[in-house]
Amino acid sequence: MSGRVQHMKSIDGNTAAAHVAYAFSDVAAIYPITPSSSMGEIADTWAAHGMKNLFGQQLQVTEMQSEAGAAGAVHGSLAAGALTTTFTASQGLLLMIPNMYKIAGELLPAVFHVSARALASHALSIFGDHSDVMATRQTGFGLLASASVQEVIDLGMVAHISALKSKVPFIHFFDGFRTSHEISKVDVVPHEAMKDIMPWDAVDSFRKRAMNPEHPHLRGTAQNPDIYFQAKEAANKYYAAVPGIVAEAMKQVSELTGRSYNLFDYVGAPDADHVVVAMGSSCDVIEETINHMNAQGAKVGLVKVRLYRPWSTEHFLAALPQSVKRIAVLDRTKEPGSLGEPLYIDIKSIFHGSDKNVLIIGGRYGLGSKDFTPAMVQSVFDNLKLDAPKNGFTVGIVDDVTNTSLPMPAAIDATPEGTVQCMFWGLGSDGTVGANKNAIKIIGDNTDMYAQGYFAYDSKKSGGITISHLRFGKKPIQSSYLVQTADYVACHNPAYVDKYDLLAGIKKDGIFVLNCPWDLDGLNEHLPALLKRTIAEKGLKFYTIDAVKLAGEVGLGGRINMIMQTVFFKLADVLPVDDAVKYLKDAIKKAYGKKGDKIVQMNNDGVDHALNAAVEIAVPADWASATGSEAKPEMPAWVLDVMRPMILQDGDSLPVSAFGAELDGSYEWTGPDGSFPVATTKYEKRGVAINIPEWVAENCIQCNQ
Amino acid sequence: MSGRVQHMKSIDGNTAAAHVAYAFSDVAAIYPITPSSSMGEIADTWAAHGMKNLFGQQLQVTEMQSEAGAAGAVHGSLAAGALTTTFTASQGLLLMIPNMYKIAGELLPAVFHVSARALASHALSIFGDHSDVMATRQTGFGLLASASVQEVIDLGMVAHISALKSKVPFIHFFDGFRTSHEISKVDVVPHEAMKDIMPWDAVDSFRKRAMNPEHPHLRGTAQNPDIYFQAKEAANKYYAAVPGIVAEAMKQVSELTGRSYNLFDYVGAPDADHVVVAMGSSCDVIEETINHMNAQGAKVGLVKVRLYRPWSTEHFLAALPQSVKRIAVLDRTKEPGSLGEPLYIDIKSIFHGSDKNVLIIGGRYGLGSKDFTPAMVQSVFDNLKLDAPKNGFTVGIVDDVTNTSLPMPAAIDATPEGTVQCMFWGLGSDGTVGANKNAIKIIGDNTDMYAQGYFAYDSKKSGGITISHLRFGKKPIQSSYLVQTADYVACHNPAYVDKYDLLAGIKKDGIFVLNCPWDLDGLNEHLPALLKRTIAEKGLKFYTIDAVKLAGEVGLGGRINMIMQTVFFKLADVLPVDDAVKYLKDAIKKAYGKKGDKIVQMNNDGVDHALNAAVEIAVPADWASATGSEAKPEMPAWVLDVMRPMILQDGDSLPVSAFGAELDGSYEWTGPDGSFPVATTKYEKRGVAINIPEWVAENCIQCNQ
Repeated sequence: MSGRVQHMKSIDGNTAAAHVAYAFSDVAAIYPITPSSSMGEIADTWAAHGMKNLFGQQLQVTEMQSEAGAAGAVHGSLAAGALTTTFTASQGLLLMIPNMYKIAGELLPAVFHVSARALASHALSIFGDHSDVMATRQTGFGLLASASVQEVIDLGMVAHISALKSKVPFIHFFDGFRTSHEISKVDVVPHEAMKDIMPWDAVDSFRKRAMNPEHPHLRGTAQNPDIYFQAKEAANKYYAAVPGIVAEAMKQVSELTGRSYNLFDYVGAPDADHVVVAMGSSCDVIEETINHMNAQGAKVGLVKVRLYRPWSTEHFLAALPQSVKRIAVLDRTKEPGSLGEPLYIDIKSIFHGSDKNVLIIGGRYGLGSKDFTPAMVQSVFDNLKLDAPKNGFTVGIVDDVTNTSLPMPAAIDATPEGTVQCMFWGLGSDGTVGANKNAIKIIGDNTDMYAQGYFAYDSKKSGGITISHLRFGKKPIQSSYLVQTADYVACHNPAYVDKYDLLAGIKKDGIFVLNCPWDLDGLNEHLPALLKRTIAEKGLKFYTIDAVKLAGEVGLGGRINMIMQTVFFKLADVLPVDDAVKYLKDAIKKAYGKKGDKIVQMNNDGVDHALNAAVEIAVPADWASATGSEAKPEMPAWVLDVMRPMILQDGDSLPVSAFGAELDGSYEWTGPDGSFPVATTKYEKRGVAINIPEWVAENCIQCNQ
Repeated sequence: MSGRVQHMKSIDGNTAAAHVAYAFSDVAAIYPITPSSSMGEIADTWAAHGMKNLFGQQLQVTEMQSEAGAAGAVHGSLAAGALTTTFTASQGLLLMIPNMYKIAGELLPAVFHVSARALASHALSIFGDHSDVMATRQTGFGLLASASVQEVIDLGMVAHISALKSKVPFIHFFDGFRTSHEISKVDVVPHEAMKDIMPWDAVDSFRKRAMNPEHPHLRGTAQNPDIYFQAKEAANKYYAAVPGIVAEAMKQVSELTGRSYNLFDYVGAPDADHVVVAMGSSCDVIEETINHMNAQGAKVGLVKVRLYRPWSTEHFLAALPQSVKRIAVLDRTKEPGSLGEPLYIDIKSIFHGSDKNVLIIGGRYGLGSKDFTPAMVQSVFDNLKLDAPKNGFTVGIVDDVTNTSLPMPAAIDATPEGTVQCMFWGLGSDGTVGANKNAIKIIGDNTDMYAQGYFAYDSKKSGGITISHLRFGKKPIQSSYLVQTADYVACHNPAYVDKYDLLAGIKKDGIFVLNCPWDLDGLNEHLPALLKRTIAEKGLKFYTIDAVKLAGEVGLGGRINMIMQTVFFKLADVLPVDDAVKYLKDAIKKAYGKKGDKIVQMNNDGVDHALNAAVEIAVPADWASATGSEAKPEMPAWVLDVMRPMILQDGDSLPVSAFGAELDGSYEWTGPDGSFPVATTKYEKRGVAINIPEWVAENCIQCNQ
């Protein structure tokens, strides 16, 4: 650990990437695509505010007409001697492929920051996996993977330094949404400190190579069969040098930050027999689970792949413990028709002909941001133990068609002792997400606790459902998955009680806060049997608050966020409540000060009133045996069997067969080609309003509206 | 062999692909790119002439604004229920990648015919290798490789049938230029015969799946993390079925054509210990060389990979002889930073954990159409024999920087007994290439001999050099490389004698015909020492003809093609000369009949006069010891060392170091980033005119022109 003071801040992965890219670049040629867009937006905002890069200038951010244009601009800008970056994902990255071959072929030190995202195939997905970056592994770019927001900063620096020193361009990638949109309290290395590790001589050398009318040279020739092959081999030595250069850059960054990085990092038992190899945010989940498993007597380990291209077998084998007998390689991508996914094939090929007798299997996980949990990690290790482990497996789903899936054990709480895990069920635009981001900031900035926030939305955006997943703890948080075992669950919308399984996975003796206008009779009437049973069986501390009424009283209208946030601080006990109130009011002043004292006062009133407004419910003993009608509504089979679980936030439970209808042209079912039935919106009644309009006969003026 | 009559015709690979694509498709959405363009042009011409596909309609050929648009149109057209094809290569194929994921994801039976071409990286190359198709191997398309013009027809049918039956789209690829532009006498299976193997029920089923307002369904949805993964796995069973479906289609085609095809075809010694695995046109070269080697007592073999994706390990292992000890995998692509090239990695990975102890190495060959010859095949097998064979090798170049290259043995003549090999050195637009195509047609159509023609151009096009490589023989010709050991060399331009090594590789007692106005004194004066020595040492039959004078006399101006073609038929003795004259005159009538009797008569006169115009030169004995000035001209080092060999058609001899200058910004050399010095055109004096203008002082009117 260096003597450098850490600059802890709660930011998301995209902000982290923009922070590094800004420092090391002259130009960013961009085009927005989910989930990468905010990297460009943030960098653009900073430039507009006059932030300086390491060269003392503002980053020039230029938005092109598409990612194809952005890639062309990156190429041209590099050729002209400007250090150039871009931010993209998914199809956007695919559009850059032709220029990527050129950029790599011309040995230009581009760095692309990619929030890795699934590719549209049978269906589009805006969510995360590695299909996009894997589609570029043949272009000649280096591929460097970050597993967390902190790594985005640390390895982001490694990417820029390595590209400059090696002349080989890099994709620095991290998992779309899971890392790009996770808010995490991290050490934001200041630009000033980055100057110490910037390879200034490589910058000079790069500038000298620029196209320049003063001393012109020719690029982009056409080469015929006589010389093309020879010229292509002339770049070999640059690629051969990359692993050493990256290792050196990692050493520099490790010294600067006190956090250690290698091309491949092994964690787990030094004498592990069973080892997983993985890349991206899954590494943190696996490490957390391995720590949990090893604490219970297992001997397992993980190799985190950081530098995927150029690949160094030497470094990989050096990282692997000698004791290894079996390896499971996890790929977050799928290449239909291949022998297996790319990382698996690579690992398998390097062991052929070696004197080590290692069993190697491979599997897929987390496609399209399918959550990857400690239970799934456990399942991967369970499989590895079998006499004949399943190969080419999937984990995280039930594949009842081609039977690739591993069995799914019950949820495990692998978080370190003392981690507080919270879930907030909100309504899109009701302020819940913003309030939770605020809570993370308050806790992160004012305590030495680590904080993590991840926000799951449905595709309805405003008016849809939002589920905030927050964790706080004394140690850096590696739980890169949705909260599975909550200490605190708050439901901000009473309409959700009989729609969603709000309390799935809540811990024994946990806290449940429900915003609703109901007294005990109301609760008895409105709460479904399952919810009642869970509350009773798990001995939950159950609170209600009529936040809508309270918000109305203090003049906040429907905005219940400040009230629910106050209740959280009061009940969750992460901070002393008096401190929390002070921080909340500071935050209110900062956020609303410009809008006038009245707004500030209303919010402050909300906080004050909320402090004592939550009512603890004495849970009736008979809730433990509550029963209710479980009759399924009258709907067509497809709506009932496929669409309804999705609407009820239970789509994860749908097996592969739900999407495997025969392709016979009937289309009353979901086909493996991505086809869906039509005219089904009518079965989706949302019923999410917190106030219900009522027709008052005597006020009617028969306006016909 | 079926009883079907063969329809032998001399066509090139692109025509072969268009012939099949036309039959099986309703729509072709295209955009031209070298070397695929003529597939679309030919199909469009046929459609304009009213040719019918197997459904009794004309193919609808639509040119879009780019390959990206073409791919989108293919996708839309398929969704609307039209069997759709396209023709592309290289960057064009890259632009199709985003749509390819969609087409494969939606299980739409597209077939892309791809004349595989290198990708622009350090430099552009319009020539052939597998970099483009390998960049699509993760998209979910099937990849089927044809090694020759005949296979383009046979496996082209397999691609269309398999796509229809499996619902998985296919790329059917063959080597750009080497196969796409090679003219070969092949069995052109008539459309009528294709009807017998068309899977009509699969066509019906495909039409039923079309988007249709009468019974609508939804496609192209966005899927969230809850279901995307499951839905993606629902296609597994379709991919698992492909190898069986392709094998069945191959069986059908084999029965129809009498030519046997399997997913992997093994040729060579049944008890081979050393085996090469390869794909594309190299397979024919390797097979030819293996036959040659095994005839001399070697025990070597080749596995031809036809179905590369979906990959079937089962079929691969079944094809491989049990005796195999060592395997060399050849890839015609390069992925900088990878562990090795893709086919090599795949093969290596399948042997890990098997009980077979097989040594597997891999190497690159033929990038950017670097010619791949029997000598190189020999070199690959020589390497495989070593105690420690070189891995990650290159073959066909001298890599004196990173020392990847294998030693290059002297040229081998591996062509079967009785093959006549000819080379014609022509001037772009002088009619040489056209005349040679005509010669192939005459011999192909009128004898039972097989014929092959390949035409090498420089990039100057009109006025540049053309080298025609022709072969004729009793057996199908597998020599997919330039003529290495010629029986007959003709030089149509006297200016070439001291520019190019015209007789490199000519056989002992071979024939050399030189178009020039020189008598023996002139020859003594103009021929360089090397040429004289070769003529004398190899005991060549050396003829001259003043074809330019003759052409002028009969009114053909500078067009000497008909004259030189007649001389060829007279001297090469492939056909009885009287027959040849008759066929030539028939061809003249067909080609020029529309232009009037006068043109026909002039050409006929050219033929008649040419018959006896070639003069055999009594080679002076002292030519064997001819010496001459070998002084290098005064030029900058780069021009002398790099540019001059390229101009002299000797660029193949340049080692990797010629392109490996340090990237220090000086740019007086060729850098590994593709950079070249500027202002060098002045050193390239072409001197190719067959008539030299002369200033006649007394005629001068001082017009100042």
